[in-house]
Amino acid sequence: MTPDWIAADWGTTNLRVWAMGPGGVLATAASEDGMGRLSRDDFEPALLRLIGPWLGAGVTPVLACGMVGARQGWFEAPYRAVPCAPLEHLGLIAAPVRDGRMTVHIAPGLSQARPADVMRGEETQIAGVLAGTPDFDGVLCLPGTHSKWAQVSAGEVVSFQTYLTGELFNLLSTASVLRHGMGLGWDDAAFDEAVSDTLSRPQRIAAQLFGIRAEGLLHGLSPDAARSRLSGLLIGAELAAARPYWLGQQVALVGNDRLSAAYARALAAQGVPAKTLDATDCTLAGLRTLRRQMETRT
Amino acid sequence: MTPDWIAADWGTTNLRVWAMGPGGVLATAASEDGMGRLSRDDFEPALLRLIGPWLGAGVTPVLACGMVGARQGWFEAPYRAVPCAPLEHLGLIAAPVRDGRMTVHIAPGLSQARPADVMRGEETQIAGVLAGTPDFDGVLCLPGTHSKWAQVSAGEVVSFQTYLTGELFNLLSTASVLRHGMGLGWDDAAFDEAVSDTLSRPQRIAAQLFGIRAEGLLHGLSPDAARSRLSGLLIGAELAAARPYWLGQQVALVGNDRLSAAYARALAAQGVPAKTLDATDCTLAGLRTLRRQMETRT
Repeated sequence: MTPDWIAADWGTTNLRVWAMGPGGVLATAASEDGMGRLSRDDFEPALLRLIGPWLGAGVTPVLACGMVGARQGWFEAPYRAVPCAPLEHLGLIAAPVRDGRMTVHIAPGLSQARPADVMRGEETQIAGVLAGTPDFDGVLCLPGTHSKWAQVSAGEVVSFQTYLTGELFNLLSTASVLRHGMGLGWDDAAFDEAVSDTLSRPQRIAAQLFGIRAEGLLHGLSPDAARSRLSGLLIGAELAAARPYWLGQQVALVGNDRLSAAYARALAAQGVPAKTLDATDCTLAGLRTLRRQMETRT
Repeated sequence: MTPDWIAADWGTTNLRVWAMGPGGVLATAASEDGMGRLSRDDFEPALLRLIGPWLGAGVTPVLACGMVGARQGWFEAPYRAVPCAPLEHLGLIAAPVRDGRMTVHIAPGLSQARPADVMRGEETQIAGVLAGTPDFDGVLCLPGTHSKWAQVSAGEVVSFQTYLTGELFNLLSTASVLRHGMGLGWDDAAFDEAVSDTLSRPQRIAAQLFGIRAEGLLHGLSPDAARSRLSGLLIGAELAAARPYWLGQQVALVGNDRLSAAYARALAAQGVPAKTLDATDCTLAGLRTLRRQMETRT
C-alpha cells in the first residue's frame, strides 16, 4: 500500500497522519510527538516513525498544518495576513528533508494586525468548511485550548479572535485552589446558570471563580457542579467578549467533543442555533483542497 | 531567652514565628513547612523545629493564624460568620499537642453565606488594622494569591469578597502559552493601559489575554511589557468586580510588596487614594490583640 499523498495535522501536543488514496483515507496513525516536545532535528524522525511503512519507491508528498510551522517548529511558515482565503498553496513552505522518499510542505497560519492575533491549524479547518460549503457567510467558532472565533465571507477570513478559555479551564481545574472539589461528571443546570452569570455580568468573573471553592466549603456544592460551573463561567465570559461575533449571526461550531456540545448549549440559551461540524473531517477536507490546488498547479 | 508567648503565621506555603517578650519581638524564624505540604502529624514537629530553642521550663502559649486551622490543617477551627469582629478569643481552638512545654491555639477564619466566601489569616490582619485604628470605617484590600476586599465598620467585618487574581497571574505567567515572552521587569505604561482596558471593558478580558502572546509575536511586545500587561489586565478585572467596594470609599491596602504598589497605582488612576499598611505588622498586631484578650480573660 503506497498512498498518493499523506495528510498531517501536527499540533503542540499531538501528531496525526492519514495515508490518502484515490478513494479517500487508506490508513491513519498518531503519536504524542507534538511540536512542543521536539527540537528542530526531531521532526523528520518523528514523522518517519509514523509514515515510514507507507513510503514506497517514488516520492510521496506530505502536506502538514498546525504548530509544526511555528518559529519553534520544524520550519517556519510565515503567517498570511487577513483578510485572505484561509489556505493558499502559494503560501506553502517546503521543509528540508533528508529522506528522499518524501517531500514535506507546511501550510502557513493566519495573522491579524489589529487586534493582534494569530492561528495555526484552524485556518485548515476553516478551509475544510469552505470546501463543503463554498458560499458559507457567517461566523465559525472553533472551541479548544485556545478557542477561535472567525468571521468568514466571500471565501475569506475577514477577522478572528482567540480566547484562552480552554487553557484557563485546564489550569484552574487541575493546578489552582479550585482543583479541590472538582469532579469528572457534568451538571447541566450548574453550567447554564454560570454561563448566564458571566454573560450578563462579565465584570464579576474575577469574584465568581473563588466562589466555586467557597460554595464547596460552605454549602456542599458537588464536585460535578463545581466543574460544570467553572466551565460555564469561562465560556460565558468568552461569549460576552465574542458577542459582536455571534449576535444575530449564523454560527457553525467546528469540534468533535463534549466541549463543542457545551458551546452549542450556551449559544442556544442565547437564541443562537449553531450546527456542529467534525473538526477532523474539516482538517482533512482543508488539506485535501490544498492538495488539489498543488496538483492543478503542476 | 524564653518568650512570654509565640506568634505564628501559618499559611499554605510558609510558617513564620515570632518570640514575643514584654517589649515586643525577641526573635523570629521561618520555614517552608506550610500547611499544604504537611499531614496532620507533621504540624507539631514542624513547629518545634522552629520554636524548640525558645521553649523553657514553663508552658509557653503559641497563638497561630492562617490555613493551619483549615479542615486539612492541624486542627479545624470552624469559621465565624460575618458580620462579626475579625477576631474573638472565644473562637480560639486548642490544637492537641504532645510536648508539654507549649499550648497551641488557632484563630478561626471568617465565612460569609451569600455570596459564599471564606478567609483564613486575613481576619488577623484586619484585627491588626483595627488595633491601630479602632474607629476605621471603610474598605480594606489585601492583595495576594487570593486577594480579599473587606468592608469594615464599627469594629466588625461587614462583608468581604475574594479574587483569584494572584493565582491566575502565577498560573498564566508560568504555565500557560503566555509564559513565552514573560520578562521579570516592569513597565508602568503597559500596566496602566491594561488596567484601564479591563476596568472599562471587563467583558473583553477573555480576548485580551491571548492578545499578549499575539502582540509579542507580531509587534514585538517586550517581555517586561507583557508581564506588566498581564498583571494590569487581571488587576483591572478585579477592580471592575470590586467597584462597589472602592467607589467613593476610604481604602487601605494591607501588603508589603510590589503587588500592593501596583494596586495603589491602579486605584490612584481611578481617583481613589489608598494608604498601604505593612501586612506582617498587621498580622503581629492582630495576634497581639488576641493575646491580650486571652490574658484579660484569665
